[in-house]
Amino acid sequence: MASLAEDLISLIGPERISVSAADLSTHSTDKWFASNPPLVVVHAQSTEDVSKVLAYAHQHRIPVTPQGSRVGYVGGCVPLKGGIALSVAGMNRILEINTADGVAVVEPGVITGELQAQVRKLGWFYPPDPASLKECSLGGNVATNAGGPRCLKYGVTRHYVLGLEAVMADGSIVKAGGRCHKNKTGFDLVGLMVGSEGMLGVVTQATLRLIPHPPMRAMLSAGFGSFAEAANAVQRILNSGFLPSALEIADKFTLRAARDYLGESVTPQGDAHLLVEIDGQESSVKGELQTLAKLVRDLGCTCLEEALGDEACERFWKLRREFSYSLRNTGLIKLNEDIVVPRSRLVDLVDFAEKLQDECGFPVACFGHAGDGNIHVNIMVSSMDDPVLRERAEIALDKLFRQVIAWNGAITGEHGVGLAKKRWWKEAVSPATHQVHLQLKAALDPHGILNPGKFLD
Amino acid sequence: MASLAEDLISLIGPERISVSAADLSTHSTDKWFASNPPLVVVHAQSTEDVSKVLAYAHQHRIPVTPQGSRVGYVGGCVPLKGGIALSVAGMNRILEINTADGVAVVEPGVITGELQAQVRKLGWFYPPDPASLKECSLGGNVATNAGGPRCLKYGVTRHYVLGLEAVMADGSIVKAGGRCHKNKTGFDLVGLMVGSEGMLGVVTQATLRLIPHPPMRAMLSAGFGSFAEAANAVQRILNSGFLPSALEIADKFTLRAARDYLGESVTPQGDAHLLVEIDGQESSVKGELQTLAKLVRDLGCTCLEEALGDEACERFWKLRREFSYSLRNTGLIKLNEDIVVPRSRLVDLVDFAEKLQDECGFPVACFGHAGDGNIHVNIMVSSMDDPVLRERAEIALDKLFRQVIAWNGAITGEHGVGLAKKRWWKEAVSPATHQVHLQLKAALDPHGILNPGKFLD
Repeated sequence: MASLAEDLISLIGPERISVSAADLSTHSTDKWFASNPPLVVVHAQSTEDVSKVLAYAHQHRIPVTPQGSRVGYVGGCVPLKGGIALSVAGMNRILEINTADGVAVVEPGVITGELQAQVRKLGWFYPPDPASLKECSLGGNVATNAGGPRCLKYGVTRHYVLGLEAVMADGSIVKAGGRCHKNKTGFDLVGLMVGSEGMLGVVTQATLRLIPHPPMRAMLSAGFGSFAEAANAVQRILNSGFLPSALEIADKFTLRAARDYLGESVTPQGDAHLLVEIDGQESSVKGELQTLAKLVRDLGCTCLEEALGDEACERFWKLRREFSYSLRNTGLIKLNEDIVVPRSRLVDLVDFAEKLQDECGFPVACFGHAGDGNIHVNIMVSSMDDPVLRERAEIALDKLFRQVIAWNGAITGEHGVGLAKKRWWKEAVSPATHQVHLQLKAALDPHGILNPGKFLD
Repeated sequence: MASLAEDLISLIGPERISVSAADLSTHSTDKWFASNPPLVVVHAQSTEDVSKVLAYAHQHRIPVTPQGSRVGYVGGCVPLKGGIALSVAGMNRILEINTADGVAVVEPGVITGELQAQVRKLGWFYPPDPASLKECSLGGNVATNAGGPRCLKYGVTRHYVLGLEAVMADGSIVKAGGRCHKNKTGFDLVGLMVGSEGMLGVVTQATLRLIPHPPMRAMLSAGFGSFAEAANAVQRILNSGFLPSALEIADKFTLRAARDYLGESVTPQGDAHLLVEIDGQESSVKGELQTLAKLVRDLGCTCLEEALGDEACERFWKLRREFSYSLRNTGLIKLNEDIVVPRSRLVDLVDFAEKLQDECGFPVACFGHAGDGNIHVNIMVSSMDDPVLRERAEIALDKLFRQVIAWNGAITGEHGVGLAKKRWWKEAVSPATHQVHLQLKAALDPHGILNPGKFLD
């Protein structure tokens, strides 16, 4: 389809259009399993590029899949229907950091960690912290309403987007919100775009809210004899009037993998592990750390370590990340499902995961954000190419998602639906809710060109 | 139009339908100036009532204006086109408070302060605190995305709505979100409904996020020689890594009215006043209060008082509320505009207000939420019935709103657009943004029955 590329070249110039095999391959996938090549890759450099390409695609009914860093976990930016892969990764300038207004203005290709580092230098803070923050882009964070451990206290990406410039399916450029920290002007178009997974428009600029950086932080790392005891500690901490910046939990299967990978001495003792992070003024944090340590000790933890200050805390976070690597190091494929359960269901979830493990024959490891019930359930599969194993894995996933839905849980907390959870979408929402999605999609993208083949199709 | 009432009676029974003169009059207005009687008042008692009434109105193209406590400041629930005033004030049950899950499930007619009090008894916290919290309803808070002083640290209503049940224009019942603290299942329908001012659907149930109640709070009340010094203190506090729960500022015109009303001795000295509130663990709050007091003192405040604990803090908040009564006590009509400016424009705004006062001949008093730039600008008018004064007032408002828009400010931070700011709506948003609003409205309410005559018409 040379004419598509030629048309696009005539619109925005040859250096921004690619049909090279390498480019088509690179832009056919993200971190999930699915893959499908686009016909053309557009490397947009400006809002005008995006606008021209979308106006063209709208007119000619050509599928467009917006892409950022392509490090999503759910196949959300796989160009399932071919067409154009519209990359905004090259639009990666931090346009402004203004602490007087408490805002940063960024292009969508800016890497999340890069913005955080720049803001931090000025003593300010952009809190959302997805695990992939060193490689994910802010545009992708906006598309998936990305979360992370600190969202317990600080909220998800949505809470930090004050304004957006977005190009709609027909190429029109819309500005929603602005640079004010409060804004009730009209409907919440910012909120509608955040988390819309590239299906309602393409974000070309974001104005983000910054807050003062808390000068000190501290952590506790505690082992418990059982997951139930660790979950109880979570609730007791909250009941004591603490809203920690993070409350991270890991189950015995995760710890077992960590012992195999990291060694017995490094891995906390017990069948469950809890990380607690607090932040604030230095003397406050020091005092609160002792209060929390006493509380956790009184609850009968099997081991307890404290960390004060960035460096010490980073060592605990490194350990937490290594739990994840430990699972990867088993050589198994990790089906990482970011389900959410009401917090009172944490123990039920881990009990269910244990039963699921027995039934399906795969190891199942649970760890994640205990404070908000957003637990990553990892079903460990030796192969997804072997049809027998794959089917068994799919059955295990079906059981997991059905149980989560039965508990009034959510099928995704921070990764998005994408392709990975498309199968459970219609079970997760009522027909009336699905219908409203279709109405909104038809209103804003009448020809269905934006990221087709995903959860609404 | 007896047949409308009769039809509605046949749908949901006679005791829920009223055409009494008293009812029609009561339901013709809110706290703003505009007023228009509906033909019928529906006192809905259930989601089914709402659904039946909307399905009927949708079929027969009858205007429906949803109403809660009718204490809004912008005429948002005035039934401008007559038709049905659909009150959900009678749906006022707190259905569940569950601290294990950190949620409350409420009907829309529940009074905000009542929920807060119930939750507080359990040691938990529902932070949004509009000034009218003793009389406003949670449904109204959702419709306007209500804010309040504490939103600086805790965020606005949107950040506490996890799930909604809403009836759409055609009577269909939609559930959005759920009871999980994180949820990326589909588009953000919750966000779209929050702040939609009754134009996209009628909320019949909300699941709200609760957080642990901080065990202690403290406040500073500081006078400054000039507004610029108080605004500088705001920025210095933030730059020191503090995110107070509230940072409230008042200008010299407000203080002057307070002195006239309350007396010289009670009113803080100086030409500007700053309230700082912090909360957290008891020993942390005590220490931070001293740090902040030193910081504010070093900045040369003219007077400084401290408050520790609920009772002492409430005295400061009472003083703050009395600033507002002082303005009312002048006998003038207070045109209270909840505009927002980027925080760096605080001083410019007050300078502008002073100039405006000279130009228009009305007193202009500014006070409000300095931390997020959401300042209530009060133009004090002796009469809105006198056409000459009214025109002068409208010219003053035009100047104010044009300047706010020129500064990239917002025409409303927490009250909504309603009728009061309808005039500046098209200046505040671009044609493309207005167009998206129309598309969404047409998609979800194709016959335009929901709250017609407001900012999209």
